[in-house]
Amino acid sequence: MNLGVIFISEMVGTAMLVLLGCGVVANVALIRTKGNGGGFLMVNIGWGLAVFAGVIVSYASGAHLNPAVTLGLMTNYLAEGKTDFVEGIPIDGASVLTYIGAQMIGAIIGAVFVWLAYKQHFDEEPEPANKLGVFSTGPAIRSYGWNFVTEVIGTFVLVFVILGFSYGGTPAELGAIPVAFTVIVIGTSLGGPTGYAINPARDLGPRIAHAFLPIRGKGGSDWSYSWVPVFGPIVGGVIAGIAAVGLLPVIS
Amino acid sequence: MNLGVIFISEMVGTAMLVLLGCGVVANVALIRTKGNGGGFLMVNIGWGLAVFAGVIVSYASGAHLNPAVTLGLMTNYLAEGKTDFVEGIPIDGASVLTYIGAQMIGAIIGAVFVWLAYKQHFDEEPEPANKLGVFSTGPAIRSYGWNFVTEVIGTFVLVFVILGFSYGGTPAELGAIPVAFTVIVIGTSLGGPTGYAINPARDLGPRIAHAFLPIRGKGGSDWSYSWVPVFGPIVGGVIAGIAAVGLLPVIS
Amino acid sequence: MNLGVIFISEMVGTAMLVLLGCGVVANVALIRTKGNGGGFLMVNIGWGLAVFAGVIVSYASGAHLNPAVTLGLMTNYLAEGKTDFVEGIPIDGASVLTYIGAQMIGAIIGAVFVWLAYKQHFDEEPEPANKLGVFSTGPAIRSYGWNFVTEVIGTFVLVFVILGFSYGGTPAELGAIPVAFTVIVIGTSLGGPTGYAINPARDLGPRIAHAFLPIRGKGGSDWSYSWVPVFGPIVGGVIAGIAAVGLLPVIS
Amino acid sequence: MNLGVIFISEMVGTAMLVLLGCGVVANVALIRTKGNGGGFLMVNIGWGLAVFAGVIVSYASGAHLNPAVTLGLMTNYLAEGKTDFVEGIPIDGASVLTYIGAQMIGAIIGAVFVWLAYKQHFDEEPEPANKLGVFSTGPAIRSYGWNFVTEVIGTFVLVFVILGFSYGGTPAELGAIPVAFTVIVIGTSLGGPTGYAINPARDLGPRIAHAFLPIRGKGGSDWSYSWVPVFGPIVGGVIAGIAAVGLLPVIS
Repeated sequence: MNLGVIFISEMVGTAMLVLLGCGVVANVALIRTKGNGGGFLMVNIGWGLAVFAGVIVSYASGAHLNPAVTLGLMTNYLAEGKTDFVEGIPIDGASVLTYIGAQMIGAIIGAVFVWLAYKQHFDEEPEPANKLGVFSTGPAIRSYGWNFVTEVIGTFVLVFVILGFSYGGTPAELGAIPVAFTVIVIGTSLGGPTGYAINPARDLGPRIAHAFLPIRGKGGSDWSYSWVPVFGPIVGGVIAGIAAVGLLPVIS
Repeated sequence: MNLGVIFISEMVGTAMLVLLGCGVVANVALIRTKGNGGGFLMVNIGWGLAVFAGVIVSYASGAHLNPAVTLGLMTNYLAEGKTDFVEGIPIDGASVLTYIGAQMIGAIIGAVFVWLAYKQHFDEEPEPANKLGVFSTGPAIRSYGWNFVTEVIGTFVLVFVILGFSYGGTPAELGAIPVAFTVIVIGTSLGGPTGYAINPARDLGPRIAHAFLPIRGKGGSDWSYSWVPVFGPIVGGVIAGIAAVGLLPVIS
Repeated sequence: MNLGVIFISEMVGTAMLVLLGCGVVANVALIRTKGNGGGFLMVNIGWGLAVFAGVIVSYASGAHLNPAVTLGLMTNYLAEGKTDFVEGIPIDGASVLTYIGAQMIGAIIGAVFVWLAYKQHFDEEPEPANKLGVFSTGPAIRSYGWNFVTEVIGTFVLVFVILGFSYGGTPAELGAIPVAFTVIVIGTSLGGPTGYAINPARDLGPRIAHAFLPIRGKGGSDWSYSWVPVFGPIVGGVIAGIAAVGLLPVIS
Repeated sequence: MNLGVIFISEMVGTAMLVLLGCGVVANVALIRTKGNGGGFLMVNIGWGLAVFAGVIVSYASGAHLNPAVTLGLMTNYLAEGKTDFVEGIPIDGASVLTYIGAQMIGAIIGAVFVWLAYKQHFDEEPEPANKLGVFSTGPAIRSYGWNFVTEVIGTFVLVFVILGFSYGGTPAELGAIPVAFTVIVIGTSLGGPTGYAINPARDLGPRIAHAFLPIRGKGGSDWSYSWVPVFGPIVGGVIAGIAAVGLLPVIS
């Protein structure tokens, strides 16, 4: 294993995740699609199985697909005295940057393909907020502090459960189906206030794509909110990584 | 294994269960959430996968997460001549109190985090009954006798199926996904009249949280109904534990 | 293994199946339930997982839970020269009657408990057809011939897929989750015209319960239609058993 | 293994897939069915589990059930220097034609049985477009170019994920449940613009059936669009087969 494989694996997996995850939002939100108005449960199931598909195609790197997972596992591994993310990939600045860089680039690529798949529906959709909503999350009630809290809690659950399956394990090690079920329930149960980014790459990558793509009739990319779904998930993931130390090896 | 591990395991698992389970009700019931009006199937799936996540993080104790399960298994084990809940944890007053105490405390903690995650939606929700509904169950048609019967039947199914997977086994031994499917179907099929508490900790813990939390515009905690989702599940669980003796070892 | 075990196993499993399966219809159809108007997908998922729970608690007998499965497997086994349903249970008149008798009695018991669990909702429901609909299927457009065809096709799929998992296997051998998924898709895809009885015991047993239970304001039990969901499934199951001979051992 | 087995296996599996897949559309779209208006998520789940059932009954041939899968795997296998589809079946013109011919014939057979199962609902349905919609896909916004792009992307995901499970593997090798989940998410997430044919046999076979069946009050079969769900999926599948070469062996 080398950093090149990590990069490709995380990039491909995150692109798959964002293509299918943002895709279900496009289907539910944009005008004249066959899934228009399909409801939040459909969004939850689509996002959960999007992660399923992403995990399938990135086993080599452990299928983090999410900077909050990378940083949460890193924190946990360092506290536990582990030295490698996966065999042959030591935990250091280079590997962390490789993971996160690949996730960001993959997320942007995935978002571009969502736009291509739904091109005509973006063109006909009259409401700019619906277009942005396909790419990035926004709060139901804007309040940076409380929105941040919600993202922290949601991402804590994600990383804590991932670590709980097999302590010290990666999403790939616990398997694509259990990860999908975990993401579905975070959506159904903690997605109400902010739309559950719980993943900085999933939110920031598509937001960048929204900013540079020539989407007809698009509005702003809501940069003022953009830090919440980046730092909230990171804080939640790191707290989960720390909370798991000494705890999950005993109880899970 | 010692009682301290049992305590932490059950507390963490039940907190996870209540956070995600009451969370989906918040998402469907409270004003201005993204899942508002998402329907009962979404509630069922959310609760089922909430139990999935709770089981994942409390394998050490067997993931009872429910006093009715603890008392149902206890009854069954004693009748079968078994002496331990899990290896090293004899069935006695201390262990039963540890299980149930941890479940209650975990449920309260989980409910507090639901309130934090949905803080603004609690603040804006005008209807006190919807706020209480996030925390605790209430009957569709109030009749203590019939509501009790429904809770008995629902919890009977839960404990009977758990024992049926591998006779004498715990929720953890049968696995998080089968438990989740069992909880989903109890919700879809027996949840109509009472909202399927089927778990005294899941109902009483959050009700206590509802009583002490400074929830804006909250109403009463409906203590007059509170005994139904405590004693109904206990009776159902114990009946299942007894019914299984001699029966499930032969047929399942 | 002896016929007494077969009897208990099938009776308990079918009671569980009908309790949860008819239960989800009660939840969706009866007035003032929490799942009222929950939609056909909720019915499909509830029925599928009802079969999941039924299979869990009746592994000993192979979890037929359905006379059409018993007769379909019987036909297939005899054509293949097999002599036993499960080890120690030869295929003969006594065992077939034991299977089917237990399924019928179990279905009646399950239906009684559905009535108890939803007692108040039956009492308040004004529409007699909704009450009967909880117990037994009825066609969307009445035409005995075409309704029969639909039940034949649906049950063919059930028995053919069961045999396809592991040729000559029982529902228990292929596992509760795959059986559940099969039942869900038969519901979503072939349940539109007749409500997919695909099981004579599931339909006739509850219809008998409907006839004798003192349900407030009930109407007739629609006996004129009752033969369709009995003989349609039997014909479909037997055709599948025959079609599988020589075919499924090669392709599945 | 010989080509006769391949033919029967693919024909039976594809018939099952189309019967259940087009069946769910009939249930949701046609007048007076019990699932009428059941929503796009129900369609997605029905189609996903239709593929589940199809895979179950055609393990022998690898359960391609889809010319785009056959051609995608063929491309990938040839590039990787593999010589056989499954043991004893060399990749050549005869085997490819056997796979695709069987898929086409199976799809037509499945569509005929959908018509029989829903006969009365076809008769009473007033809208010709709804009748055609049961058989074949049509775009939400007609634009051959963009519709083609959407079908390419959806089928790319299907074949890429199939190859990703176990590199070089078939749908049968990765298992019926993971394939079903993959198809569900393609539907929820990429099905909005075109109704996700992602399978030339699934679309063209039923379209032929629509053309020759004596469906009461049917309209045209929309042949002008028919090439999009044939060539789009083929292009997407082949691109996935090529993209996987050298990539998926390393990262998945």
